[in-house]
Amino acid sequence: MKKRESKPTQVVKVGQVLVGGGFPVSVQTMGKQPLTNDLDDIRRQIRELHRRGCDILRFSVPDEESARCFSLLTRESPLPLVADIHFDHKLALLCIEGGAAKIRINPGNIGASWKVEEVVKAAADKGIPIRVGVNGGSLPGDLRNRPDKAEAMVEAAERELAILDKLNFQQVIFSLKASDPEETVKANEIFSLKYNFPLHLGVTEAGPLIPGIIKSTLAFQKLLSQNIGDTIRVSLSDSPEREVEAGKEILRSLGKKNGGVNLVSCPRCGRSTFDTHAFLARLENYLQGLEKDITVAVMGCVVNGPGEARGADIGITGAGDGVIIYRRGEIADKVPLSGALERFIEEIEKL
Amino acid sequence: MKKRESKPTQVVKVGQVLVGGGFPVSVQTMGKQPLTNDLDDIRRQIRELHRRGCDILRFSVPDEESARCFSLLTRESPLPLVADIHFDHKLALLCIEGGAAKIRINPGNIGASWKVEEVVKAAADKGIPIRVGVNGGSLPGDLRNRPDKAEAMVEAAERELAILDKLNFQQVIFSLKASDPEETVKANEIFSLKYNFPLHLGVTEAGPLIPGIIKSTLAFQKLLSQNIGDTIRVSLSDSPEREVEAGKEILRSLGKKNGGVNLVSCPRCGRSTFDTHAFLARLENYLQGLEKDITVAVMGCVVNGPGEARGADIGITGAGDGVIIYRRGEIADKVPLSGALERFIEEIEKL
Repeated sequence: MKKRESKPTQVVKVGQVLVGGGFPVSVQTMGKQPLTNDLDDIRRQIRELHRRGCDILRFSVPDEESARCFSLLTRESPLPLVADIHFDHKLALLCIEGGAAKIRINPGNIGASWKVEEVVKAAADKGIPIRVGVNGGSLPGDLRNRPDKAEAMVEAAERELAILDKLNFQQVIFSLKASDPEETVKANEIFSLKYNFPLHLGVTEAGPLIPGIIKSTLAFQKLLSQNIGDTIRVSLSDSPEREVEAGKEILRSLGKKNGGVNLVSCPRCGRSTFDTHAFLARLENYLQGLEKDITVAVMGCVVNGPGEARGADIGITGAGDGVIIYRRGEIADKVPLSGALERFIEEIEKL
Repeated sequence: MKKRESKPTQVVKVGQVLVGGGFPVSVQTMGKQPLTNDLDDIRRQIRELHRRGCDILRFSVPDEESARCFSLLTRESPLPLVADIHFDHKLALLCIEGGAAKIRINPGNIGASWKVEEVVKAAADKGIPIRVGVNGGSLPGDLRNRPDKAEAMVEAAERELAILDKLNFQQVIFSLKASDPEETVKANEIFSLKYNFPLHLGVTEAGPLIPGIIKSTLAFQKLLSQNIGDTIRVSLSDSPEREVEAGKEILRSLGKKNGGVNLVSCPRCGRSTFDTHAFLARLENYLQGLEKDITVAVMGCVVNGPGEARGADIGITGAGDGVIIYRRGEIADKVPLSGALERFIEEIEKL
């Protein structure tokens, strides 16, 4: 597949977030608990995800109760909320009416054409986009046994597009997700050569934390380095918070994101006097919400510690009974272990 | 940097593990606790790392007590053990005598040339290799401020090589690690164009679990896809077990490893009746030790579940109150949630 010319995709608005057109790649995740009457935990989670830099949040809406809860949440959410709907056009209408910033629904699954028309008309009236999500695990029956899954996924997307085209609806985001990273890459490469709709990237059912992050990193690296992809979700059998952290870190590591902390920290070994793991566990929560574009080094000992700590914007390294804090290459302070975290955060705040 | 011709590196033996020459890329990690008298925990960990597919294990040996413990461990370890030594040639001699399968030491840091000669002679007598580890955070003073860190790292490696060359010692593995993935990639690309010593890859001080895995995946993808790299370590501020899991998964995802489980599992959402996270937490421990070359799907619900579960060698998906188990695309069983794990493992064992 030849490298795509960087033809920008069209821009679509998801709440206040601009997706496509070369705007910064946004990071999204999905709520994992059913939407029920007791929304306090979910409200807390929405605020925490916002603090950690999540841009867009999606919920499954499988029934009317969920749709009602979804609509309550949209009123106060600092994040644009997306409703994920399968089959039932009434739920789509309820969520659009209830303030969804986008709906994810495949027109081909809704049924009768009057139902599709109603949903599309409602989205157009509210000015919200539709995401069409093609998934390698749930292709239409006649496409399921095609030898080339990536091409079958593109064809499935094109069928959905044909329906929306007829209704002259253009505010569409597409996703083409397979559980195999290579198939995901190929499907998105083919699609992006043919169309300029913004793409939501994801490796679906990528697995638990470690394999899920590795598969997503490999696929996103190949696509984002060709400027394919406008919003991403790292799909993990793990918490939404970790999905957001992974998504932000992938973008940062690929140079696709301004701001965000580059955390350099040592693996610890028998040489270390300073328990960097425990220190990091406490520091990371603070760093998740930080938008400063800095390198922070947390090092255990004197072998590589001073070098890395000096090279970072701010660094800390174990030394004997205490720690040394470096700021912009100079020693800022030497302090005992107790109080090291507070002192270190103080120095970070000054940057 | 042009793509390297696949000129094989020379082969070096680390215990029973062949490193270089196109042999399978091995996975290594490092013990993180000091080696002290109470070695029972460390013995347990060595066995567990072996069960999980770790190929080589390294320990820091900062003092004589550690060297003594190291030598005790080598006698019974099912894994080749490597001693990591800085500065002190006596510790190197003790560990070589004590059964180290490799030592990691930089001749340039040992001091007087007679000390270097003693260490090299001892390694040659025992037929064990030396790894020279160049680290971007601890370059020699005159190389520290070079504008191109990757080139400075290669030069540091060449100085070490010159010392070993004079002593006619060839059983050398090199590593060139920086905390920046791009610098790591570049240093290894330059080095591998000039020399055919086997390379140990790592992004040093890569950070905690999530950023550490992402940086390592990006760097290893670029290097291993050019056939650069003969053994890898994912350096994380986290446990050795997770370093091994990440290393194996990177190799598997890049097609560099035969065997090992491809785990497809859904992120869970409000639709799911089957708690895939909890199920996975229990299943993963079993899967870590499994060398079968299979795809296992663990899916929550009926939207994508049946498709993925059918496409895998073995799959399970939530359905109403119970689960459906698929084997090679056919329904093998329907069982209630209780007992699902045992039944699923039974089916995996049959493959």
